[in-house]
Amino acid sequence: MYLTQGLHRCLQQRPDAIATISGQRAQTYRALADRVARLAGGLKKLGIVPGDRVAYLGLNSDRFHEYYLGAFWAGAVVNPVNTRWSAGEIAYSLDDSGSFILFADETVLPRLDQIRAAYSDLRHLVWVGEGERPDGTIDYEELIASAEPVADERRGGDELAGLFYTGGTTGFPKGVMLTHANLVTGALGAVAWRFVNPGGIFLHAAPMFHLADFAAWTIITLTAGVQVMVPAFNPVAVLKAIETHKVTDTVMVPAMLQLLVDAPELRNFDLSSLNHIGYGGSPISEALLLRAKTALPGVTFCQAYGQTELSPITTLLLPEEHEPGSPRLRSAGRAVPHAEIGIVDEDGARVPTGQVGQIVAKGGHVMAGYWRKPEETQAALKDGWMHTGDAGYLDADGYLYVVDRVKDMVISGGENVYSAEVENAVARHPAVATCAVIGLPDAKWGERVHAVIVLKPGASATDEEIRAHAKELIAGYKCPRSVDFVEALPISSTGKVLKRELRTSYAAKEQEFEYG
Amino acid sequence: MYLTQGLHRCLQQRPDAIATISGQRAQTYRALADRVARLAGGLKKLGIVPGDRVAYLGLNSDRFHEYYLGAFWAGAVVNPVNTRWSAGEIAYSLDDSGSFILFADETVLPRLDQIRAAYSDLRHLVWVGEGERPDGTIDYEELIASAEPVADERRGGDELAGLFYTGGTTGFPKGVMLTHANLVTGALGAVAWRFVNPGGIFLHAAPMFHLADFAAWTIITLTAGVQVMVPAFNPVAVLKAIETHKVTDTVMVPAMLQLLVDAPELRNFDLSSLNHIGYGGSPISEALLLRAKTALPGVTFCQAYGQTELSPITTLLLPEEHEPGSPRLRSAGRAVPHAEIGIVDEDGARVPTGQVGQIVAKGGHVMAGYWRKPEETQAALKDGWMHTGDAGYLDADGYLYVVDRVKDMVISGGENVYSAEVENAVARHPAVATCAVIGLPDAKWGERVHAVIVLKPGASATDEEIRAHAKELIAGYKCPRSVDFVEALPISSTGKVLKRELRTSYAAKEQEFEYG
Repeated sequence: MYLTQGLHRCLQQRPDAIATISGQRAQTYRALADRVARLAGGLKKLGIVPGDRVAYLGLNSDRFHEYYLGAFWAGAVVNPVNTRWSAGEIAYSLDDSGSFILFADETVLPRLDQIRAAYSDLRHLVWVGEGERPDGTIDYEELIASAEPVADERRGGDELAGLFYTGGTTGFPKGVMLTHANLVTGALGAVAWRFVNPGGIFLHAAPMFHLADFAAWTIITLTAGVQVMVPAFNPVAVLKAIETHKVTDTVMVPAMLQLLVDAPELRNFDLSSLNHIGYGGSPISEALLLRAKTALPGVTFCQAYGQTELSPITTLLLPEEHEPGSPRLRSAGRAVPHAEIGIVDEDGARVPTGQVGQIVAKGGHVMAGYWRKPEETQAALKDGWMHTGDAGYLDADGYLYVVDRVKDMVISGGENVYSAEVENAVARHPAVATCAVIGLPDAKWGERVHAVIVLKPGASATDEEIRAHAKELIAGYKCPRSVDFVEALPISSTGKVLKRELRTSYAAKEQEFEYG
Repeated sequence: MYLTQGLHRCLQQRPDAIATISGQRAQTYRALADRVARLAGGLKKLGIVPGDRVAYLGLNSDRFHEYYLGAFWAGAVVNPVNTRWSAGEIAYSLDDSGSFILFADETVLPRLDQIRAAYSDLRHLVWVGEGERPDGTIDYEELIASAEPVADERRGGDELAGLFYTGGTTGFPKGVMLTHANLVTGALGAVAWRFVNPGGIFLHAAPMFHLADFAAWTIITLTAGVQVMVPAFNPVAVLKAIETHKVTDTVMVPAMLQLLVDAPELRNFDLSSLNHIGYGGSPISEALLLRAKTALPGVTFCQAYGQTELSPITTLLLPEEHEPGSPRLRSAGRAVPHAEIGIVDEDGARVPTGQVGQIVAKGGHVMAGYWRKPEETQAALKDGWMHTGDAGYLDADGYLYVVDRVKDMVISGGENVYSAEVENAVARHPAVATCAVIGLPDAKWGERVHAVIVLKPGASATDEEIRAHAKELIAGYKCPRSVDFVEALPISSTGKVLKRELRTSYAAKEQEFEYG
């Protein structure tokens, strides 16, 4: 199992079919394969030997696609970098992974000096931007043009394919080591259950550096589809790409889907080619599903739950399970054919159906470990079971309900309070647009439940009203003991509320209050 | 990746759904899982430790299914034995694999004494037959009832799952070592392309000891379907099972399909539940496809090509490619998502499109090797490429045409003659029902092309007519130099003509003639 398999097969089966469409550029599989073999030759000239890491920092484009395939062809390990990271985080991932070559576009410019200052071992920067090439960088097209095509190293199986740094919500980034077998297994299992349909015209609307989009990339690459890229998510650009290129499939997070179906421009485009949207990151609300079904008639939806450590797809809520009114809409679906899942207590013992505990998963998609972090690896992987850090429960039919990150659980007065449960209760107040619940240090309760609320435009509510509302829905000890109203919540690049940031900023405020 | 994954998932997702239907017996996943865990306990009591081999010799039944799962649950390696083998061949496979436990039903009885005599290390025979239990054997139900359920060993990944002995057409049996990862990869890739639909009601009509049926078993086990067994292929039993159990999917060889669609009883059964047939072993003739489409309206067909060493599926001709009149009907389709294929010459170099050479394949489905045969393994596996021993060519769109076993190629006067090409030419004579072409030793030509022909009932033809007919279609050097008319051809359990037997018997006849 190796990630270049799909390119070989496409070259054999449909060499003159279109492989990628990116902006004004389109190319066939034959042209792509030639460029990939030359890019691999270029990487070797720059000193890459099998097993070396190569990083990419950029928006979606056909060059990102070529980078993935070219790196694998050369036997290298990919390190796609999150474009929203700070210079410090980027330098950390380059340094930790030992990536001495970085492909980058304009997104790097504001941070380039800082990155170079923080990571002196960056030997080559290959410029994949469309604009003027900065001094001291290598031109991407020249690298390809000047290199001879080389033979595919065909590294595969249990050999490392990529380091995918997780960060944002869970502390210092860790390099998740995924092998070729991990990624191919995850793709085959996900396509067997049709998270994305095989061989379609796929639109990369979500960031290509993110593993959710990369999972779709793997499926489409293995099943000989067409890959269409928009640089970054933007409702009108996405709508236009769907119409122009007759896109059939895409993958989004619910926040993107919401922006898309609520876009007033939607009615101006012919979206009849679109027939399937895979989404992940969180369940879809019934209201959004109904709006999406109206805006995009005939489109089917499939939800994935997983995490980077699981390549990432582990459960799926299938199209036929997207029934408005069904309580299963709040679930993440059931284990995919390549995964086994379970719920365990703090001692690692299985808990009964319906009881909340930590979600664990086993299968060919489970990461090889965290890069150079044996202790963290040992803590996460026990007997091959990935301990996800997510809290959840299973119903009698094996549907998984993710209630929280274990780390986001508030322990107040000795009771476990799942922040998602409190958030759901608070969010049902008519004045509330969105909210986040965190635990704050408390002398009496250990932690106290604190709600940070964004009100709907023009709406108003008081602390007291919110607490009274919550008490009607959930137990008293779960209700927010303090409430704060804000303009907006800090959100990660994948649409998740950054609770760590919230906790840090509130902890700082409380200190100011105590000592100020 | 481990083959018991599906059972765990079914137990979590649909514990009270029917898992198996075999004769008068049906059981739920919950009951099955309990029996499997006890059977594994029983195997451990009989001395099985992880990695040990356990053999099964019997007709299709739910016990065969339990044996597969119970052996994997105990960490053992399965060794399903071909029921049509001689006592000597069976004893060889038990001895070579070191299987000291054999599960067997009535099919073993005529050969039991011979097997025991030839393989003295057979410690336990577990009786799975429906009839009277022979002395000195262990009762299957007692073994299960008396054992405590044990925890799943969850052996998987690159650990050995089964030894599948190949034999019949290609010389002395070799134990093909397939790992859990091989088999799960093959199943996920095949279901992604819908060789069998996931989660259907599947009928085991082909022998369960054969890897083609086992591939379907793996798919249905991983995707939570229902498994229905008939003891052995018989058109009326198959028709009745389809009607009674509302079977949706099955797998056959074309010879079985022919018997089914030509059965006069077909019209007496309601076959409306059936929607898909996977087949393999050879392409389907256009005539048979047309008859099958008439007899089974609405049923789709998918052809697989592969071999035991490839777990076994490697190419698929998809339902939409089954177009009567299309030249691609004679192909074996294209490489599946988990495989890369190529055609090489005698030096291992790739040959141009359209040129015949040896078919090679690479991917996660390629066997770990031949059991205790390092030289044969080295000859078959080069850089991870399985050298199939099959001759074939690819067209410009990557469709594979299998022309022959490399070993069945006749070398006459220094020219390569592919027996399949000659057979196709001869078979187009209106009097010919079927034919096999072999090479016989010849003083002048090295080998001479010899055709063994079965005429249609009531038809007649002479040697001269056959040769004149062939000369109109193929080059003179490819035409049969000698022709023989027989009542029937020797056929293997999987429907292949046993050319080795034909060659041996003709070689013996020629010797009689020379020295007689």
